[in-house]
Amino acid sequence: MLRKLGAEFIGTAWLVLGGCGSAVLAAAFPGLGIGFVGVSLAFGLTVVTMAYAIGHVSGCHLNPAVSVGLWAGGRFSAKELPAYIAAQVLGGIAGAALLYLIASGKAGFDLSGGFASNGYAEHSPGGFSLAASFLCEVAMTFAFLFVIMGATHGSAPKGFAPLAIGLCLTLIHLISIPVTNTSVNPARSTGPALLVGGWAIQQLWLFWLAPLIGGALGGIVYRWISADQPAPVAVAGD
Amino acid sequence: MLRKLGAEFIGTAWLVLGGCGSAVLAAAFPGLGIGFVGVSLAFGLTVVTMAYAIGHVSGCHLNPAVSVGLWAGGRFSAKELPAYIAAQVLGGIAGAALLYLIASGKAGFDLSGGFASNGYAEHSPGGFSLAASFLCEVAMTFAFLFVIMGATHGSAPKGFAPLAIGLCLTLIHLISIPVTNTSVNPARSTGPALLVGGWAIQQLWLFWLAPLIGGALGGIVYRWISADQPAPVAVAGD
Amino acid sequence: MLRKLGAEFIGTAWLVLGGCGSAVLAAAFPGLGIGFVGVSLAFGLTVVTMAYAIGHVSGCHLNPAVSVGLWAGGRFSAKELPAYIAAQVLGGIAGAALLYLIASGKAGFDLSGGFASNGYAEHSPGGFSLAASFLCEVAMTFAFLFVIMGATHGSAPKGFAPLAIGLCLTLIHLISIPVTNTSVNPARSTGPALLVGGWAIQQLWLFWLAPLIGGALGGIVYRWISADQPAPVAVAGD
Amino acid sequence: MLRKLGAEFIGTAWLVLGGCGSAVLAAAFPGLGIGFVGVSLAFGLTVVTMAYAIGHVSGCHLNPAVSVGLWAGGRFSAKELPAYIAAQVLGGIAGAALLYLIASGKAGFDLSGGFASNGYAEHSPGGFSLAASFLCEVAMTFAFLFVIMGATHGSAPKGFAPLAIGLCLTLIHLISIPVTNTSVNPARSTGPALLVGGWAIQQLWLFWLAPLIGGALGGIVYRWISADQPAPVAVAGD
Repeated sequence: MLRKLGAEFIGTAWLVLGGCGSAVLAAAFPGLGIGFVGVSLAFGLTVVTMAYAIGHVSGCHLNPAVSVGLWAGGRFSAKELPAYIAAQVLGGIAGAALLYLIASGKAGFDLSGGFASNGYAEHSPGGFSLAASFLCEVAMTFAFLFVIMGATHGSAPKGFAPLAIGLCLTLIHLISIPVTNTSVNPARSTGPALLVGGWAIQQLWLFWLAPLIGGALGGIVYRWISADQPAPVAVAGD
Repeated sequence: MLRKLGAEFIGTAWLVLGGCGSAVLAAAFPGLGIGFVGVSLAFGLTVVTMAYAIGHVSGCHLNPAVSVGLWAGGRFSAKELPAYIAAQVLGGIAGAALLYLIASGKAGFDLSGGFASNGYAEHSPGGFSLAASFLCEVAMTFAFLFVIMGATHGSAPKGFAPLAIGLCLTLIHLISIPVTNTSVNPARSTGPALLVGGWAIQQLWLFWLAPLIGGALGGIVYRWISADQPAPVAVAGD
Repeated sequence: MLRKLGAEFIGTAWLVLGGCGSAVLAAAFPGLGIGFVGVSLAFGLTVVTMAYAIGHVSGCHLNPAVSVGLWAGGRFSAKELPAYIAAQVLGGIAGAALLYLIASGKAGFDLSGGFASNGYAEHSPGGFSLAASFLCEVAMTFAFLFVIMGATHGSAPKGFAPLAIGLCLTLIHLISIPVTNTSVNPARSTGPALLVGGWAIQQLWLFWLAPLIGGALGGIVYRWISADQPAPVAVAGD
Repeated sequence: MLRKLGAEFIGTAWLVLGGCGSAVLAAAFPGLGIGFVGVSLAFGLTVVTMAYAIGHVSGCHLNPAVSVGLWAGGRFSAKELPAYIAAQVLGGIAGAALLYLIASGKAGFDLSGGFASNGYAEHSPGGFSLAASFLCEVAMTFAFLFVIMGATHGSAPKGFAPLAIGLCLTLIHLISIPVTNTSVNPARSTGPALLVGGWAIQQLWLFWLAPLIGGALGGIVYRWISADQPAPVAVAGD
């Protein structure tokens, strides 16, 4: 169990260092910056890479909404939930801290740029309302869990789930960075928010509540869709 | 059958929410927007993700031109066509409606921007004529079905069809967004058109007719090309 | 054999329509254009999609330098070379003609923009000399055939060759579009050159000679590198 | 053994020609340049393509930090280390020399642009300090080796390691080009530095030391994480 939690910790740290790191360090580099396309790729590739590396160790959830959605879909045990979520949140914080150490090595660095925190209303990158932001996070996490449940189902092609799931996270970012900076992952939201403080912490509730609701719904609906199919395969070890 | 139709409904809603959503919400974001490259990736990834998730449930057509092309190619039964097409169109409408709820949460949002509707002549993004637009949609859907028929053929490598097919949709968008905003999918065209009304509905006929013709031709030609090969595998359940 | 040649014809037409089409129609679209990244992706994806669709029919060469390189590497029979090359060149012309019909549906279209033809010296996009252009085409086609030989070797993972080969073509374009507009494929060069005429035909010799030399070298060198390995698998049907 | 070293030599030359070549030739092309997204893709695809082509010959390390990290993780023998590292460094120099021959075929070419050399402090693209650059290289190479160890583990899905590892290199570049121009590979750093001379050679120590430390740590930590798993598979031949 300690090795599984270590894997979730390192994997979630990589998700935040890689995804938020690409946003903070490279997105707006003058003339050659990677923009939202590059940030979307980076978030997705953190999951692709880690899912091939530790999928066979811990299931590579890296996200409390994934663990909860898989539990709602009948694929993960309730008694492992608290430890997984704790490891993910600590990993998210560690990733954000490591990113801070690197990013602050540039003269003029300043956390007031937001440090890739998630936000709504006046802190939505494109100025989207609380209601739109909430709905967007629910819909995106619903689809994320629907795809995770499906791609790891026993009838799906073997070995492709990490690609399908990571590229789903890329897709989700291509759609929704302008709305909320894209969370769908409470651990990813918590890391940068703790460093930025203030508004980022005040708005953090949405990035726990909406992903957990969307994720649970995704798990439940997929379970119904696939009820005729041969027996599924558990994603996470037990 | 209800589960298959539910899968087609959810999958097509995801295609429209994800593909058109990336165009409406993120393509032209100041300085960091995803442009046509990002929109092309997003459309393709909706298919990659759903094909791994529900390919084993419904075949993951998400598109009346795909269902018709597979029927023309001898891979899908005529008696399932009407229900599949109905589920796809309803899914496309649901996806567009959900996108509207999110997009309208930004001050100043306005459907007059086109809401990712398909168009030709004065509504072609690059000003391409009706004839060029028609030819383009026929050629693109022909290639799409040719690739779908081939990648799901019993002699093709197992498990890669969702990647090949989704990335084919990405490729089609990389080529043809400037011509028609790219349809190759009547259900994808119908959703936004119903919300925009006016010209988008008047031009909708082309985005049913041309993809259906191209798709049927693609299915027929591939059937001939592969007539020497070992028996194909049905894509959709029966 | 007719079906194999039909597959090579359609596949090469798709390579030119898709690759050159993305360049002509979408690369420089104001504000949202796909640039060289999008064109590179498009060229690569024409090969990824067709290799999954017709790899099991004809081997999916789509390129005289590939057929010649595989022959030099001991994987393709000399007696099939002429028919394959003829089908590829005709396919390249058909793809360019189809692209012309679409592209000319826009007011103000003009072949003097180059129509994605390959060129060197004053017709190199970045102004690279004849010698640099020749060396670049040889090196790129060498690497292309080296990767094709390796990824289709009997010891390589099964099913991944279309991805490796298509993404190699993407990579080659990411490097060398500024040098020659990237050929590595005489059939791809011939189609647009016949439409543009003049300089494009005068410079066409380089885009036959350099890719054929590079491809043959790549086939020969890989054959030496892998001489200890278990027996290779033929790529193309026989 | 000679064939293995030949494979490492050619593969590393391709990594430098392709990765640094995309940066030097195409990144900043006016209006259509590939930017850091394209350079990141190019570096990753050099590894994807070569890993499918020569993974079954030499293991496709192409990087002294990979060879050392795999040794630290118990997957590679110490007695092959010196020859592998020598072949990689010579390949990196050959790739840089070939790139120089191509790049200098453009009027006005000048090595003072940096020729894609790695640097810190005043030679960091974004002006990051020595400490931040060192930490960044250690963290990136740690993650790279962690993913390499995991994706080639005997319990990971078969055949996907080249994709996971290559896309990990893409991800690493998406994050860290602004910091150090991204090394994580002493052979990649050495090639361009020898041509540029001066500051590039004076700063070269960091791009040997930090990747080797990070790589060794990544190999060791993954070995602990996976100690409960079934026996791993050796990546490189022996």
